Amino acid sequence: MLSGCGVYDGSEIHEAVLTLLAIDRRGAEALICAPDMAQAHVINHVTGEPAPAESRNVLVESARIARGRIRDVTRVTAADIDALILPGGFGAAKNLCDFAFKGADCAVHPDIARLVREVHQAHKPIAAVCIAPVVIAKLLGLERPSLTIGTDSGTAAMVETMGARHVDCPVREFVVDRAHKLVTTPAYMLAGRISEAADGIDKCVEALLEMA
Amino acid sequence: MLSGCGVYDGSEIHEAVLTLLAIDRRGAEALICAPDMAQAHVINHVTGEPAPAESRNVLVESARIARGRIRDVTRVTAADIDALILPGGFGAAKNLCDFAFKGADCAVHPDIARLVREVHQAHKPIAAVCIAPVVIAKLLGLERPSLTIGTDSGTAAMVETMGARHVDCPVREFVVDRAHKLVTTPAYMLAGRISEAADGIDKCVEALLEMA
Repeated sequence: MLSGCGVYDGSEIHEAVLTLLAIDRRGAEALICAPDMAQAHVINHVTGEPAPAESRNVLVESARIARGRIRDVTRVTAADIDALILPGGFGAAKNLCDFAFKGADCAVHPDIARLVREVHQAHKPIAAVCIAPVVIAKLLGLERPSLTIGTDSGTAAMVETMGARHVDCPVREFVVDRAHKLVTTPAYMLAGRISEAADGIDKCVEALLEMA
Repeated sequence: MLSGCGVYDGSEIHEAVLTLLAIDRRGAEALICAPDMAQAHVINHVTGEPAPAESRNVLVESARIARGRIRDVTRVTAADIDALILPGGFGAAKNLCDFAFKGADCAVHPDIARLVREVHQAHKPIAAVCIAPVVIAKLLGLERPSLTIGTDSGTAAMVETMGARHVDCPVREFVVDRAHKLVTTPAYMLAGRISEAADGIDKCVEALLEMA
């Protein structure tokens, strides 16, 4: 599940590509999807500033990472997939939900919430990378799943407020909650180098596919 | 050297990220740069159609892949780098040069031409991925370097017209011309899976760094 194309307003591109590589290396096939909706905003990735005159669509921008092979999330059901992965990037916290703006009081986009709940209820595993575990914490927090967003205490506290148990985790590792079929890894919440993110994501995808 | 962000109007995102991963895995450091210029056009990556109302900047879009750490190519000289890599994507053939529109009669953007020639004259190695070897063929073709764009006979013929020797090459392999310090690999000119592109790019970067 992608959320745009670029760390500050969409999917973190390295995380998304490394996830696709890990999936393909293990002989699995990715069905890439995203919501057909306007991005929360567009950020100029040179300056870090919003570009208020611009408007972009999450599905259309995500298609850049997907090389055009992408499906509107409304056309994906739990029956279509064996597992669900949410890469990070601010798009996960600005487009898939509004955690970046509202913290623990955030709301998850209804189409995203529907698919996550459907996959979880079908006892299929879910992985969430970087900041994307906040989506899971918001939707499944009442079940008290264990997950990680790395070591940032402020974000961890908000994850706990939403009901989940936060576990500190180094960048090249991951946290698995086998009871809830949930895998998470910090990636660029902590990574200073792409190979650090790659190691954690690779282990995360491996653990996910073992449970699928 | 990036050329935007998205296979149809910029850098091929997978190739760019896999290049960064291969560089980092070998303990080298990437200095990411791009030209500060308008893209030739913007392509909607869901439909494949141009979006004529939109205009995007190559440097600003490339910054999405670079996570904001990017330099205008006019501020990069051969003294700053040990080697130069050009990932593919249509951006290499639409923004770095206009090969996609004019074929063998193309012109290379002056800032790109200046850096490529400078690096080559300093006897530092250059790698080009996917369609990006056409930039090298245009600039250095008179030296008769060997390179590959995969197996597409039409594109190969245009590469030969520009003076270079084209060598057919399978997707997971690469072509090295040690006399001209030039390495090329087909990547998504041929790849059907991301792991195929990853293997060729990884070998390409390894060979490049050996010559640096």
